[in-house]
Amino acid sequence: MRTAFYISDGTALTSETFGHAILSLFPVEVKHRTLSFIDDENKARLAVEEINAEFAAQGEKPLIFHTIIDPMIKNIVTSSQAVAFDFLDHYVAPVQAELGVEPQPRTNRTHGIHQDYSFRIDAVDYTLANDDGVTTKNYPEADIILVGASRTGKTPTCLYLALQYGVKAANYPLTEEDMADLSLPSDLKMHRHKLFGLTIDATRLQQIRDNRMANSRYASTEQCEKEVEHIESMYRREAIPYLNSTHASVEEIAAKIMAITKLKRYRY
Amino acid sequence: MRTAFYISDGTALTSETFGHAILSLFPVEVKHRTLSFIDDENKARLAVEEINAEFAAQGEKPLIFHTIIDPMIKNIVTSSQAVAFDFLDHYVAPVQAELGVEPQPRTNRTHGIHQDYSFRIDAVDYTLANDDGVTTKNYPEADIILVGASRTGKTPTCLYLALQYGVKAANYPLTEEDMADLSLPSDLKMHRHKLFGLTIDATRLQQIRDNRMANSRYASTEQCEKEVEHIESMYRREAIPYLNSTHASVEEIAAKIMAITKLKRYRY
Repeated sequence: MRTAFYISDGTALTSETFGHAILSLFPVEVKHRTLSFIDDENKARLAVEEINAEFAAQGEKPLIFHTIIDPMIKNIVTSSQAVAFDFLDHYVAPVQAELGVEPQPRTNRTHGIHQDYSFRIDAVDYTLANDDGVTTKNYPEADIILVGASRTGKTPTCLYLALQYGVKAANYPLTEEDMADLSLPSDLKMHRHKLFGLTIDATRLQQIRDNRMANSRYASTEQCEKEVEHIESMYRREAIPYLNSTHASVEEIAAKIMAITKLKRYRY
Repeated sequence: MRTAFYISDGTALTSETFGHAILSLFPVEVKHRTLSFIDDENKARLAVEEINAEFAAQGEKPLIFHTIIDPMIKNIVTSSQAVAFDFLDHYVAPVQAELGVEPQPRTNRTHGIHQDYSFRIDAVDYTLANDDGVTTKNYPEADIILVGASRTGKTPTCLYLALQYGVKAANYPLTEEDMADLSLPSDLKMHRHKLFGLTIDATRLQQIRDNRMANSRYASTEQCEKEVEHIESMYRREAIPYLNSTHASVEEIAAKIMAITKLKRYRY
């Protein structure tokens, strides 16, 4: 099997994104290996040893996706027995021509601390303190309040919104009691402009719940179908925007919510 | 000011990473705008209207960083009054030559649901249930247990480890009582091979705590200095690997921990 190395003088998050985006176009299985914080010549030489050992073991040249700026370190890494793809190579010159400004590369700049960094930590704190409907008293400070049945992905989505986008995301689980009179719980009514609903196919909900509480009423087909039906009809009646999380990853749900609500984000 | 557009038929996370990595090399201020899920011709035409309006407003051509595969949609978007950079353009042909395989592009492939997706959700569940030392009984299932003084970044780091890498990360706050006898709490002793310490400069810790509880003993300079000193000396004595989070983002701390511990990750 072919091995792909993601190499950087920093977190390697950019190199990973770069390599995955390219490799995901090809129907091949690849072994992945990240070498982060390769920021001196000694580490670069150790990386080369590992790359060459992988070539010897697999019999095929590894692929290297990298974002290394320092020319000495880059020279060492690309002297290995691999095919190297330099993410910055192709774009710096044309962007420079368009901007009319010289680049000022610094090591490990992309994923370092930004000025607006504390927004994200504050957002994570907020999201944890307002998870799963434990309290509704902080909803005036929420940027968004996710609602939905239990196990539709509210909590991971809220955490991703906070960590990736710096958004203060609360969430409130809609329960059978909430649905009993088929109307919005009163704590939510006054914040309805911040509500966003999640839903999920009943068969998938049933599987997820069954993994957690096998053979319970909570995980029964009837219960899941009833909850989903009631909640979706409530979303429509109350004109709450919502989306179905069945076939979506946390990243996709969060990005869709950002696109639909046009929420301000604190980090780019 | 120049405007940068990040455009994709999916989450646009790759386009954002691509554009940020390039732009972070240049000392220019840029206005950012993400257009995600541009997956039909109508949305593409609306995107063009927005890009052209931005050109009219700013008087400088916007920069477009995109990952659009569909040729019709790509043609529409790149017909706008902007300078477009295509992330896939330069790399697909050389990677294809090396792999000897035709690409099979699918829309929105990179950040969709993977087979190992449930690992990440399970990891988030685990991390939330084992945050802040609320319980130690699940430590046998932990991949890693972060320890450190209050407000050193344990919780956001654990959540990032779970969401990004699918790692089950518990965390345990080291308190004054824990430090009183200058030894590791007994609940931690039996899991010492999973421990990883965070520390922080005392002056920065003091600032962070003062923002939360101004003029408290918890936020006093003396208290912060004493805690940091005791905890760091304990890390050294007990040979617990640790790092200083003062100048590091959550992404950097998490990536460093992954590099140092060589933890298995469930997502690439």
